[in-house]
Amino acid sequence: MYMECLPIGVIHTPHKDPKGTPIQPSGAKEFEGIIELDPKYRDGLKDLEGFSHIILLYHFHKSKKYNLTVKPYMGKEQRGLFATRYPGRPNPIGLSVVRLNRIIENMLYIQDVDMLDGTPLLDIKPFIPEVDNRDADRIGWHENSAHRMSETKSDGRIS
Amino acid sequence: MYMECLPIGVIHTPHKDPKGTPIQPSGAKEFEGIIELDPKYRDGLKDLEGFSHIILLYHFHKSKKYNLTVKPYMGKEQRGLFATRYPGRPNPIGLSVVRLNRIIENMLYIQDVDMLDGTPLLDIKPFIPEVDNRDADRIGWHENSAHRMSETKSDGRIS
Repeated sequence: MYMECLPIGVIHTPHKDPKGTPIQPSGAKEFEGIIELDPKYRDGLKDLEGFSHIILLYHFHKSKKYNLTVKPYMGKEQRGLFATRYPGRPNPIGLSVVRLNRIIENMLYIQDVDMLDGTPLLDIKPFIPEVDNRDADRIGWHENSAHRMSETKSDGRIS
Repeated sequence: MYMECLPIGVIHTPHKDPKGTPIQPSGAKEFEGIIELDPKYRDGLKDLEGFSHIILLYHFHKSKKYNLTVKPYMGKEQRGLFATRYPGRPNPIGLSVVRLNRIIENMLYIQDVDMLDGTPLLDIKPFIPEVDNRDADRIGWHENSAHRMSETKSDGRIS
């Protein structure tokens, strides 16, 4: 049983090259982007502008294959794929929370973008702190590296 | 251009009927579930047990169609679909953050489950507060209802 996903739009960003792309929105605060939603979905944007942040699900379209252990951008050890946010995955779906600045017709002006230019968008969800934030007590191998994430850039190994 | 998603496992939960299922993990704290990962992906679980919380992406497999405006569980007004977490979406991909209690072989014992029993799993990502938490200043139409979410249950309208 499989599920077919069709892009509902495209994300335009300043990140033209996998090399140098910030690996998470926390390292991408200066970067603005534009979501160009397929106009046929425009009615679905009603009420969205009231939210300061939105969750984007998108296709890691440059990732054609995956390995079950990978060496993350940070650190030297091989890690289990599902313990990383690595783009190459069995279902290469990316997840980012971005700031929503404004919506004009079918265009969404966003900030903190960490995805490649031309990324196919799969879904938009409102970010609701009561639902989405967590006090996580353990972050595994990230323990010593999470604070470095905002400075780390991709080295282009995905493409 | 489309993207084909194949389930990597199945999520077993106590929620056998859409009616009465909690609508978000914040209303599902008492509920435990088990992810049965397809054994061929087992090596990808390495290092995951160090994380207290994980992000699950899954197929809203009972949602066969969508409308661009919907009446959410909370509230009486029609809202734009993308301003809601409603299951019926162009790409019916669900997102939940759950607590990870332990992993035994290809079975993940999780808590705070708000998805239906038998839900096909698409991806597991580690939850990292530095990456995933946000101080959102605006939550739109949820402003007056977010605190009620944990008490609200589905009325079964999806199925």
